[in-house]
Amino acid sequence: MSIEVGILGYGNVGRGVEYAFGQNPDMHLAAVFTRRDPATVSVETAGVAVVSTEDIAAWTDKIDVLILCGGSATDLPKQTPQFTALFNTVDSFDTHANIPAHFAAVDAVARQAGKISVISCGWDPGMFSLARFYGDAVLPAGKSYTFWGKGISQGHSDAIRRIEGVLDARQYTVPVAEALAAVQRGECPELTTAQKHERECFVVAKPGADLEKIRESIVTMPNYFADYHTTVHFITEEELLRDHGEFPHGGAVIRSGVTGKDGEHRHTVEYKLTLDSNPEFTGSILLACARAAVRMQQEGQSGCRTLLDIPPVYLSARSREQLLKEFV
Amino acid sequence: MSIEVGILGYGNVGRGVEYAFGQNPDMHLAAVFTRRDPATVSVETAGVAVVSTEDIAAWTDKIDVLILCGGSATDLPKQTPQFTALFNTVDSFDTHANIPAHFAAVDAVARQAGKISVISCGWDPGMFSLARFYGDAVLPAGKSYTFWGKGISQGHSDAIRRIEGVLDARQYTVPVAEALAAVQRGECPELTTAQKHERECFVVAKPGADLEKIRESIVTMPNYFADYHTTVHFITEEELLRDHGEFPHGGAVIRSGVTGKDGEHRHTVEYKLTLDSNPEFTGSILLACARAAVRMQQEGQSGCRTLLDIPPVYLSARSREQLLKEFV
Repeated sequence: MSIEVGILGYGNVGRGVEYAFGQNPDMHLAAVFTRRDPATVSVETAGVAVVSTEDIAAWTDKIDVLILCGGSATDLPKQTPQFTALFNTVDSFDTHANIPAHFAAVDAVARQAGKISVISCGWDPGMFSLARFYGDAVLPAGKSYTFWGKGISQGHSDAIRRIEGVLDARQYTVPVAEALAAVQRGECPELTTAQKHERECFVVAKPGADLEKIRESIVTMPNYFADYHTTVHFITEEELLRDHGEFPHGGAVIRSGVTGKDGEHRHTVEYKLTLDSNPEFTGSILLACARAAVRMQQEGQSGCRTLLDIPPVYLSARSREQLLKEFV
Repeated sequence: MSIEVGILGYGNVGRGVEYAFGQNPDMHLAAVFTRRDPATVSVETAGVAVVSTEDIAAWTDKIDVLILCGGSATDLPKQTPQFTALFNTVDSFDTHANIPAHFAAVDAVARQAGKISVISCGWDPGMFSLARFYGDAVLPAGKSYTFWGKGISQGHSDAIRRIEGVLDARQYTVPVAEALAAVQRGECPELTTAQKHERECFVVAKPGADLEKIRESIVTMPNYFADYHTTVHFITEEELLRDHGEFPHGGAVIRSGVTGKDGEHRHTVEYKLTLDSNPEFTGSILLACARAAVRMQQEGQSGCRTLLDIPPVYLSARSREQLLKEFV
């Protein structure tokens, strides 16, 4: 019997989850819930109901888990507690500083409702959380580094778009090659986020706009760009669509630690992602976590979880026998 | 209250576990058990009992977990079931083909005795098992590769030492650079183990030995070398001790998979280890797994486990609060 799944929010991540069903035949997409008029939303998969979020309560017996694909700024802090009262839920909440508060809010509802909610299921937080965790657990004496990119940062792209004279923009976060190499060599340098990353901007200006003024506005923007080595390229709208229409991303978590009588032996653990599509990889992780959420709840567990709490086997459709034989 | 730990078998891995206690203050080494005359074994840590394996049954109330540091060929298949009848146990059983049988044998004893045994806790099997598992779980449509090295293979070094005229030898397993690069680029080539690795041998010959005959015996040896590109260097005993006295190792697990409507987006996940000391890194993992074993058994669980079964948080001494705040 397949696991019945709902998706709430049909943007890039929601579509990424939808595509992942093709690779997870034990899971079945039953419905997409939307705050828009359902008649205006057309999903890729045949036979999937498109339902107004207002009618979601009628689906408590029809789906085993709801995957929340909204944003971390305003959607998820409200939605995840709200819908965990009715369903097992999974989200990709990614505002790192607010994870403990989000966890506490969701945990209270989940325990009360007898549901499982797995939060922060993406690649960072998510797979990178696991990499940071395992690196520290097996090498307690050491230093960890997280590098992001090369990839598009939505927040930084938006910040550029708000500048006067800008029509559209894409911002790539790029690891500083020398910083990355020093960490990979186990040199354990002290590095700020700005020393680890540089920013490359592709900007489409409005006709007649002052390019030098736009460039200056970008590179001096506090928090976003001022502390970073920032490069600005002006391109045409056609070039933007042709060369920067996808959502690549990636990065690396590197743990460098020592063992031995006097810490004389050094070890480096590197977990590296190179992603053609940030939202589709995130969607694939969300679906694996949805499987785990249902299994845990069916065992009688309740409460909030992160990937650090989940026995790995719960994430996979494979049998324990196959895992022991082919993966251990 | 610290977790009381025993080590059975005081070779390179046993000493690696011993060193790891300095970085894990919640764990305490209570005793080293040995099949040798305890009077002939001197351990590094002050105040640790050295006890004959024959007297181990007297320690059931004094230690919470026993870490088995014997070999996979003959020691562990016997020892892990035997001592799991008395203690929670952890081993680094690494004969991949026999893991299901070893698991079954240990599981039966553990359930009967109400103990937890975590088997195959090293880096392969162990951390590489996790990397293979998670890569497949989040990218079900794809292909996985395991590369070993550059590092010393004990089995291959031993095979060379058995050749007539050889005084001592070290064999390094080295990933084939072009094969590794093709996999990292996401090209998903079909590769045998021999196409992924080459073998570099450092040999000390006995005085007057026929070097060409030794070289020929190595490169034509079935299973071990015949299928591989193998290089043989003859060196002096001094050079061997000076340049090849350590146990470096490492390798990489790479998952290359696709997502999207038609699998049009490719993703590469790489987990890479560079280790100065294979036995010390293995010892550090064993100690983290020992912590998890005790916690699971204290919860009332029993049976055999691998790293794929363990909720990550059980491996770490850190609090859930700190993990949520700093690692997720």
